Formats: sequence, C-alpha cells, structure tokens
Amino acid sequence: MLIDCHGHFTTAPPALGRWRERQIRAFEESGARVPAAELHISDDEIRTAIEQGQLRLQQERGIDVALFSPGAGKMAHHFGDEQTSLVWSEVSNNLISRVCELFPGRFVGVCQLPQSPGDALASSVHRSAAELQRCVEELGFVGCLLNPDPSDGFWQAPPLTDRVYYPLYEKMVELDVPAMVHVAMSRNPALQGTCAHYLNGDTAVFMQLCQSDLFTDFPTLKLILPHGGGAVPYHWGRYRGFVQDRGRPPLEESLLGNVFFDTCVYHQRGMQLLVDVIPAQNILFASEMIGAVRGVDPETGHGFDDTRHLLDSIDTLTDADREAVYGGNALRVFGRLATVLAEGARR
Amino acid sequence: MLIDCHGHFTTAPPALGRWRERQIRAFEESGARVPAAELHISDDEIRTAIEQGQLRLQQERGIDVALFSPGAGKMAHHFGDEQTSLVWSEVSNNLISRVCELFPGRFVGVCQLPQSPGDALASSVHRSAAELQRCVEELGFVGCLLNPDPSDGFWQAPPLTDRVYYPLYEKMVELDVPAMVHVAMSRNPALQGTCAHYLNGDTAVFMQLCQSDLFTDFPTLKLILPHGGGAVPYHWGRYRGFVQDRGRPPLEESLLGNVFFDTCVYHQRGMQLLVDVIPAQNILFASEMIGAVRGVDPETGHGFDDTRHLLDSIDTLTDADREAVYGGNALRVFGRLATVLAEGARR
Repeated sequence: MLIDCHGHFTTAPPALGRWRERQIRAFEESGARVPAAELHISDDEIRTAIEQGQLRLQQERGIDVALFSPGAGKMAHHFGDEQTSLVWSEVSNNLISRVCELFPGRFVGVCQLPQSPGDALASSVHRSAAELQRCVEELGFVGCLLNPDPSDGFWQAPPLTDRVYYPLYEKMVELDVPAMVHVAMSRNPALQGTCAHYLNGDTAVFMQLCQSDLFTDFPTLKLILPHGGGAVPYHWGRYRGFVQDRGRPPLEESLLGNVFFDTCVYHQRGMQLLVDVIPAQNILFASEMIGAVRGVDPETGHGFDDTRHLLDSIDTLTDADREAVYGGNALRVFGRLATVLAEGARR
Repeated sequence: MLIDCHGHFTTAPPALGRWRERQIRAFEESGARVPAAELHISDDEIRTAIEQGQLRLQQERGIDVALFSPGAGKMAHHFGDEQTSLVWSEVSNNLISRVCELFPGRFVGVCQLPQSPGDALASSVHRSAAELQRCVEELGFVGCLLNPDPSDGFWQAPPLTDRVYYPLYEKMVELDVPAMVHVAMSRNPALQGTCAHYLNGDTAVFMQLCQSDLFTDFPTLKLILPHGGGAVPYHWGRYRGFVQDRGRPPLEESLLGNVFFDTCVYHQRGMQLLVDVIPAQNILFASEMIGAVRGVDPETGHGFDDTRHLLDSIDTLTDADREAVYGGNALRVFGRLATVLAEGARR
C-alpha cells in the first residue's frame, strides 16, 4: 500500500478562501466574527475539486491513500486572535473531514491546530490539544500539523521543545497521533514561503530537537519533518558533529526513535541522498501534492512532485525497506491509521 | 593551489572578546564608547593563536591560503548602535589585517561590514561600502561578509535584493570584490546559530535571488553562499520547479553566473550531492575551519571539517573541475586575490 503522508487541500473550492478573507477583514475592521455557518460548499464542489485534482494524480501515480490536511500556508496563525484561529481551524478541519467521508479509504484526515503567536501561545496550545482530540475522536483524524512559528515568518515563539507545548504533546501521546511539524505562510518579505520558510522551519526544528531532551520526557512522541527534513540530511555530518562536540548521544539514539522525514524532495540526487543518509525506518513516502511545485520536470518528463517516480528509480532500497518507506512506516508512525483504514474499507 | 575561501578568526586572543564585552556593556549601561585603542593584542599573541590553530590545520591538510574574516557569529550586528558596529568592524578587520601581515600568502582578508538593523539599515549600508573600500584599498582585503539578517535571528530586514543594499553592491562591483552571504549570531532561542540560522540564512537568500532580477541590475556582482548553500543543492529540483512555474529563466541562466557555493558540507554523501548537482565552476573549496564543528568523525578518522579529505575521496570530478573547485574558481570570483597573493609572495 502506497501512503502519501503529506497532502494539503490546496485545491479547496474558492468559497473557502472567500470566507477566510471575510473572517480576517471583519475582525480587522471591527472585531466582528463571521460565523462558520456562512460558509457553503456542496458535496459536489468537493468531489469535483478532489476528482480533478489530488485523486486524479493519486490514480496516475498509484498512490492508495493520502493523509490530508488543510492548506499549510493558509493556516496563517498570525491573523486575528485566538478565536479567529479556533474557528478557522474548525472550518478547515471539518472540510477535510468531508473529503475523507466522501472518499473513504482514499483520504485520512490530519488536522490544523488553532495555534496563536505571542501572549496567546500558551492558551492556544490548550485549545490545540482540545481541537486535536475533537478531530481524532469525532472525525477519525490520525495526526496534526504543528507550526513552530505562529508569527508566520518572524520566529517569535520559543522552540517546540519548550514546556509551553507539553499539554499538546501529552494529548498526542494519549491519542497515539504524531505531528507533522509544518510552518504556515511567511509574511516576511525576506523569507519566501514554500522554498525558504518551509525548509528553514524543518531545519530549525531538527536543531531544536538536537539541543533538547524532549524525547526523554515523551518517549513515544512522534514528529515528522516534511520536505525531506529541510537541510538536515544534506548536512547530516554537521549535526552528528554538533552533538558529538557537546557530549550528547548520537542522533540515532537520541532522535531517530521519534523523528521521521518525508520524501518531498523533487529531484533524483536529492532523493538518493535522503535514502542513503536517513535509515529507511525513518522515511515516510510523501509528495506534498498538489503543492509547492506543480510543473513537469523537462529532464524527466514527470511532475517535480512525482516522488513515486523518483523513489521507484532508486535501486539501493531493499524490498523490505521500500515497503517500509512506501507505507509500513506510515502505519507505524500514525498509530491509528490502520484502524481508520479498516473502518473505511468496511463502509 | 588549495584556497580555503571560508575561514573565521574564531581563535582570536581572548582580549578581543573582553574588549567587545566592555564595548557592549558600556553602551548599554550609559551610552559610553570604549575606544579601539584600549584593545591590546601583541603580535606574539596573534602568532600563537594562528600557529596553534588555523595554520597547523592548514599545513596538516595541505591548504595553501585561507580567505580569513572575523568570527561570523561575533559580528552580532544587533548590539548597540551604528557607531558600535562601525568601531567593532574596524577593530575586527584591523586584527584580520594583522594576521595577513604576519602570515603573508597564507591569509588574505575578508572584512566584516558595519551593518545595523532597523531604521539604521540604509545608512549602515553606506558605512559598509566605506568600510569595504577602506579594507580593500588600504588593507588589501579581497571580499566581505554580508549579513542578510542584522537583527540576528528575527529576520527584520528586507531581502538582500532590496534597493537599500545597492550602494554596497555598486562599491563591490567597482572594487571587483564578492560578498560571502553569512548571517551572524542568532539571539533567537528557536534558531540555533551554526546548524540552523546559518543554513537557513543561506537558503533564504538563495530564494531571495530566485525571486529577483538583482543580477540584471548588477551583471558582475558575485555572491557566495557558504555551508554548501544551506538546503539549496539538496532541494535543487524544488528551486528549478519554482522558477519554471513562474516563467522565470532556468537557474543556470539567471543565477549561476553570479552565485557560488562553498564546500562546507561535513560528510561524504552531502559533499557528493554538492558536486553532482552544482556545476564545478560554481563551487569554491572551503572548510569553515576552525568553526562550527571541531571534532573528529569516528566514521572517517578525520575532522568533520576536513573537507579536503572528503573532496579528495570523490572520484567523479575531472582534473580540470577539481582544479577549479580547489582554487581556480576562488581566483576568478575573488578578482583581486591573484594580485594580493603575488604581492605577498614578493615580500
């Protein structure tokens, strides 16, 4: 089974974006709230968006299941206040739930969290734990997106290893769901979103983990670093040397029981580096489709984000390792996924 | 000739750090200035620091010349005001000049610039151009370090492609000197310095360049991205796809006439990726020695930062490409270097 652990509903019907714009504008202009009930999207609109978008590409590429979350950039946690982000998360997650209901077995939900920057961070973590619980227990979701920079480009929150995040980690462990660490948009003109802020977020958080004992406190907590882990596999020697210089245990011991990398690397050499450097047990198939890069690579004739093609071309993976990367690891890391898929299959 | 284009005086005599602490404290407490004349470092102290540090490793590794700059993290442009950074730059650059005088032909200077964050950015760019001119014309330096985040970890400046930086670029072009784009310290607890902020700076700036037409305005401007270009070579497909999606010219056309990558990648697989992905004409040998990682890699028995060893082990470079990477490119990119070396040899 080929499981894509990293898909966002980037093709959501335009009514969603219009509702969000109204929500932001109303709050900025007068502090007013736009009710979630004012958003109207029909099942047919969802079906069309999915069938012409992600599902078509899944079928072309032989992807069986996508773990599906709201658009990451569009989480944009800096807008409005805590209530803004809470309602936006509920709206976005409920829409994902409808996709999963309409395409059971094809899409499984991963939720956005109602995080907030600044003084609201701590209380927003508690709200995030509650929204996670709702999504997992009521909607059948299997994971969440965790934004390490709710200021959206100015890095004004403490590291993810700070105790302020512990209530969320307690809930994740209790529910047996992992987080994909994923920044949202960048509103910083110095940091472009998909090719700078995204990768920098992955790199920054890996380093936060290198400096902390988070997994001593949460031995079963699981975090996925998307986009092939940012700069990390390319600079694996730098990280190995850093922890060694400081007398910390090797990365294999301290981090690789808990940290996983996805395969959103869009060229053959990069993908080969990933599988050469990171143990197969720590790599989860993903394409981020339809996402940051949408064109066809003229060098291969395949979409840049057709990571299935890139991985199929790699001949250094054993059969067992390939099975782990393509789906086995996802079933292990997303502890509730097998059950959710079995329930979907029964319907 | 093996030219290391990326060395910092990280082993400077402790008096330098003590002077800097006094400078910062005096300004913070009362706005007072500590004169540069209060710093006393003897030639013998410099000789000892270099001979026991960088020079010893250069000799062990067969490195002929290092392009040598003040400690990058210690530039710390956010401290104090414009005058603080100006005097600190002069002090730091003058010390580098003394190293170069004491070891002619072994060390060639690359200067720190008196950049400042916030409202002082624009005027600090003019001061930077002036300090660059002083260092090049009076001290025989051949390049500069350019910090894309003078706020030191909060990314509060416009991109390096903003016109505010043009007076510096005009001076660089006039003097025929390149800049190594290099962030300073991070004072942001979410962004560790050497393994997160450094790499993220490289990645962010590459993306700034992908989005701009800077090199249309400055066709002969040359920028070096250190640390192997951050995440860039690993994600080369992502960047190729990004510019293609937006109808921009290929990276080879738009950037590779002006942008260069150093070889500060501390493991074999990463180094191989760099030379596989980036044309040899765009790669400059570097080790960042003595710098971010100082231990010996137990897997190789060589220092993590012994990039000479890693490159020597790569068998996919032609002789001509190897010569270019080891020194030829540095002589081309640092347009004044050959003359400075010839002058050093005559003394």
